[in-house]
Amino acid sequence: MEIKVVRQILEWNEDCSQEIKETLRDKKVCLINVMGSPGAGKTSLILEMVKRLAPDWRAGVLEGDIAGQIDAEKMKRMGIPVVQLNTDGACHIEAMSIRHILPMFALEELDVLFVENIGNLVCPAEFHIGENFRIALLSIPEGDDKVEKYPLMFATTDGLILHKYDMLEYFDFDDKRVARSAEDINPGIRVFRVSSRTGDGMEAFIGWLRQRISEELK
Amino acid sequence: MEIKVVRQILEWNEDCSQEIKETLRDKKVCLINVMGSPGAGKTSLILEMVKRLAPDWRAGVLEGDIAGQIDAEKMKRMGIPVVQLNTDGACHIEAMSIRHILPMFALEELDVLFVENIGNLVCPAEFHIGENFRIALLSIPEGDDKVEKYPLMFATTDGLILHKYDMLEYFDFDDKRVARSAEDINPGIRVFRVSSRTGDGMEAFIGWLRQRISEELK
Repeated sequence: MEIKVVRQILEWNEDCSQEIKETLRDKKVCLINVMGSPGAGKTSLILEMVKRLAPDWRAGVLEGDIAGQIDAEKMKRMGIPVVQLNTDGACHIEAMSIRHILPMFALEELDVLFVENIGNLVCPAEFHIGENFRIALLSIPEGDDKVEKYPLMFATTDGLILHKYDMLEYFDFDDKRVARSAEDINPGIRVFRVSSRTGDGMEAFIGWLRQRISEELK
Repeated sequence: MEIKVVRQILEWNEDCSQEIKETLRDKKVCLINVMGSPGAGKTSLILEMVKRLAPDWRAGVLEGDIAGQIDAEKMKRMGIPVVQLNTDGACHIEAMSIRHILPMFALEELDVLFVENIGNLVCPAEFHIGENFRIALLSIPEGDDKVEKYPLMFATTDGLILHKYDMLEYFDFDDKRVARSAEDINPGIRVFRVSSRTGDGMEAFIGWLRQRISEELK
């Protein structure tokens, strides 16, 4: 019975996701779904992306959290247009929530909308939210066995950020193994080794990001 | 509609959880539900607990993973009785799965059964699995804002392990803040600062663990 219901939700979700895609195509806004575990560094990476896409592109952020608005406050302090979604216990963001929130942004003033999904390597991967593409983060301290353990996340993302890469020397993490496993289940994936703290690897990643956004906004 | 169905699942789950509790009380086995994010160090901590409870208590492990059996193989190599549960996409373990798996263990030869739940700070907190008590891990690299962001996990656990505590100097992590936030929403919680790698803090934690198990097996 559980499976049947989940399917039904997934079908509604797909319809709603398509509707969001059409709205955003009209408004010329590129939606990027950012996913990863709690503490993978999603907020830090989004702050870097917003900063480095300016002034060419103006970005807003939709912050997803089960509770609280810690990250939204960080965005606000940086002058970034932000809306906080609290899922009140739910482990992922659904397209219905995005559709509800979109009118709260001045979309005509935005080129890019980042959605920071709930910190979770599992459920968010199942739900499309009208995104143009996905970025998944795996931070070095989490360990190098995560592609095998949470395959859907890595099979469905467009970009994979091996984040907190400056911590590599302190952890037993085989980054070649991770890249290889991810490419095995997802041949189109692009893997980047990045530290938001030191800036290492950021340039290559932002180059790819700009190219992807350009293609989507054409 | 989604909410109604989830409630129904939670009710079935509670009935099944009670049944497991009764079975394990008869068999004199203490079930411990171990939860935390991907990469928080659940497997390493369980290996330490099993090793340090021996020879007084014999422990088995039920490994929960969405896919694969990497951790179960680690347990097997250490000679620990282990069963792998693959949830095939599901983000938490339900009591029904535990009930199904229990007969696969020689329960009369065990005193303690650890369940390593799916790496996820969200959904596992909602589902009782017949456990006597819960241990949640939060590792230093994950960041010190997780109690506010994922309150249910910290409100419902008995022990909180601030894990990989030897990494404290490399991260901006206010451990007093975390302990205070956790105690605010869960006055009965016990917080331990532990490194499974160096062994620091392990003795105090194992002392508490032994006391809790003794109480449950009375």
